[in-house]
Amino acid sequence: MQDVTRILARRVVESRYEDLPASVLHEASRALLNWCACAIGGSHHETVDRALAAVMPFAGPAQAGVFGRRERMDILSAALINGISSHVLDFDDTQAEAIHPSSPVLPALLALAEWRGFSGAEIAHAFVLGVEVECRIGRSVFPQHYDAGWHITGTAGVFGAAAAAGKLLGLNEQQMAWALGIAATQSAGLREMFGSMCKCLHPGRAAQNGLHAALLAREGFTSSEQGLEAKRGFGQVLSTRFDPAVITAEWGVRYELSSNMYKPFACGLVVHGVIDGCIQLRNEYQIMPGMIERIDLKVAPLVLELTGKTDPRTGLEGKFSVFHAAAAAIVHGAAGEEQFSDSCVQESAVVALRGRIKASVDKTLLWTQAQVSIQLRDGRTLERYVPHPLGSLERPMSDADLEKKFRALTEGILDTTHSNRLRELCWSLTELSDAGAIAKAAVQ
Amino acid sequence: MQDVTRILARRVVESRYEDLPASVLHEASRALLNWCACAIGGSHHETVDRALAAVMPFAGPAQAGVFGRRERMDILSAALINGISSHVLDFDDTQAEAIHPSSPVLPALLALAEWRGFSGAEIAHAFVLGVEVECRIGRSVFPQHYDAGWHITGTAGVFGAAAAAGKLLGLNEQQMAWALGIAATQSAGLREMFGSMCKCLHPGRAAQNGLHAALLAREGFTSSEQGLEAKRGFGQVLSTRFDPAVITAEWGVRYELSSNMYKPFACGLVVHGVIDGCIQLRNEYQIMPGMIERIDLKVAPLVLELTGKTDPRTGLEGKFSVFHAAAAAIVHGAAGEEQFSDSCVQESAVVALRGRIKASVDKTLLWTQAQVSIQLRDGRTLERYVPHPLGSLERPMSDADLEKKFRALTEGILDTTHSNRLRELCWSLTELSDAGAIAKAAVQ
Repeated sequence: MQDVTRILARRVVESRYEDLPASVLHEASRALLNWCACAIGGSHHETVDRALAAVMPFAGPAQAGVFGRRERMDILSAALINGISSHVLDFDDTQAEAIHPSSPVLPALLALAEWRGFSGAEIAHAFVLGVEVECRIGRSVFPQHYDAGWHITGTAGVFGAAAAAGKLLGLNEQQMAWALGIAATQSAGLREMFGSMCKCLHPGRAAQNGLHAALLAREGFTSSEQGLEAKRGFGQVLSTRFDPAVITAEWGVRYELSSNMYKPFACGLVVHGVIDGCIQLRNEYQIMPGMIERIDLKVAPLVLELTGKTDPRTGLEGKFSVFHAAAAAIVHGAAGEEQFSDSCVQESAVVALRGRIKASVDKTLLWTQAQVSIQLRDGRTLERYVPHPLGSLERPMSDADLEKKFRALTEGILDTTHSNRLRELCWSLTELSDAGAIAKAAVQ
Repeated sequence: MQDVTRILARRVVESRYEDLPASVLHEASRALLNWCACAIGGSHHETVDRALAAVMPFAGPAQAGVFGRRERMDILSAALINGISSHVLDFDDTQAEAIHPSSPVLPALLALAEWRGFSGAEIAHAFVLGVEVECRIGRSVFPQHYDAGWHITGTAGVFGAAAAAGKLLGLNEQQMAWALGIAATQSAGLREMFGSMCKCLHPGRAAQNGLHAALLAREGFTSSEQGLEAKRGFGQVLSTRFDPAVITAEWGVRYELSSNMYKPFACGLVVHGVIDGCIQLRNEYQIMPGMIERIDLKVAPLVLELTGKTDPRTGLEGKFSVFHAAAAAIVHGAAGEEQFSDSCVQESAVVALRGRIKASVDKTLLWTQAQVSIQLRDGRTLERYVPHPLGSLERPMSDADLEKKFRALTEGILDTTHSNRLRELCWSLTELSDAGAIAKAAVQ
């Protein structure tokens, strides 16, 4: 695989819409609906306000809109902002390899669609390919790359955005190889930023820089043609493991979007098992916080590594505290955006229960799994093992679940007319003659 | 040094202009003059044309100009383009740790100056600090970071741009720590791109992203406050060696700009020893190419690693061929931009001589040194050992040398009036009430 960059470029360029399975195209609509919900739901977060304040004085012509808001700007800036807002709630889609596939790719495509009026089928096709590229490249270096400290949604996402935008822009094989190389040399994002506003800057920059990579390559801006596999290319420099064969294996047979997962809970996937177990026990046994003596959680090492904050002070920090997530799930019976607000993190009942929760590592558990044990004051101990949390591939959210999530996240931001129209556009994506209608329906 | 990011932020914020030595401020003028020469000299390169074509449709308000051209755009886009053009000829300043200090920093500062009218003293101060920050961070991970494949001008340069722009924008300590963190999580650039247009994209993006980091931090966009030193921060993730003590050692005592070097030859520093030795022998013995049987070069391992191309086809590739550099130096007695043009690389006399040049590795040589041995057809063998090439700290270019380089690079792009005015502005930098005059004098 000495020429995997070139082979991948060729696969993307030669891919035909007609060959995509209907199930994959339906998944593209599901992912789009979920992504729109997240982008709109996050669009008025202070992170987005601050990013916009730092971008607007320098933004270009009004080519594309910001989902959930009124601002309009050039497509590169719009890709940045929409990438930020769609990840700010940590509610966007995920893959087993820790990548969030839609947030780096869709902001680039939807901005291009609004600017130049591509069809829904073209957008769906480019989206499927962008997800193929980023997830396959991510998997080629996983888990060592991620373990070393790279935020794979940023580092691999930029390739997805470049490939997707490049497909839409009609790049030839040579240009596509350059676009992948330009993406490689902009690949960035550190896990140290988790818990700060920079975490969602990563998919934003990935979308913006990937889109720019495709635009540069279209103009003949050259890069190495071995950006992935060279001795000093992405795979060798950013990881101790690099398996290029993964990038092209089963191309056109197995689709990455078919492994896409959507979150019922507004935080990192690593906490979902714990939340799910807590809510199950709470509802089945009608547990009130006052009944609880203590809660013992058993989780995989990664869970405590990512979400080990015992004393979060803000809603954002709460997303990185498995203790808060469990306490809020018991007190409220839910783990939506509201449960990761500053006020919920500071709520006395939640704080009190949080102090009675212990977590320990069980290396036999996968990072999506959890074992919840609730010791009640009446002497009973309730146990729940969660092998597959809600939202996993084994227990996926239904289309109706996704619509419910969409309504909850867009409520109060879009009026019902816009919200309904946007939902219908997502479901009918492949039928749209002008997919620019999506972004136009998504603004206030 | 568990809090080096915070300490560095404090040092930058608390730095006072009054404390800067006059010699360092003079060096700032020298670096500025050299940078302007490179940016203007490179401004009509096809790399810049292509980058501009991919940027202009999306650029924002006419806040800043492109050096050597007529286009005007927002400061973020201008920083990108001026960063590209100033590195495209590989003629900008260098430090012993392989970083090019000015190209990531000055494009951000000069765009800000043009937009908001900062004084020359403010620009000089911010510039000195930006170079401190990027070079010290670069040194903290050198050489392992560079050896692994990172283009340190991009990866460290983004910190320099962030700190310099942040100083100019008046960030407080907290904001400066965020700006450094936002820079850390955008740190990127692969050495695999050497020989392609992406090499000069690196300082361009570093300037743009560093400037944006400062603008984001000013709006309260948060990052980790341990972006440099954390387990999953820059130092640990992007290098096998990280020595944080280097970053603050001798702060305010030893200045990085005092170790700045300027190139007399239009290619990477690693080839300068060979070029210098060839030109010395050529001139002293009045050697014509036809007199030469063969040339043997002895160089450090890095030289062949970076510039080992035996059969370059383009001017750009010629910069990565020590064989071409030596042949052109003998044939033309020079190694300016003209000697790294497509036509010179394809010139029959140069091609013929190139084929008679051999290079071997001598591990006792430093990467700046060279041993040139020319075997003449008349039986004589001429030898020259170059311990310190022209342009090194031991044999620096004089102010007059720099003016000559400036004239050569700006000729045909700026008229004499503009060119003279710009040169005077550079020398009187610290006296300027409005340093925006620099960019205004530098356009066509």
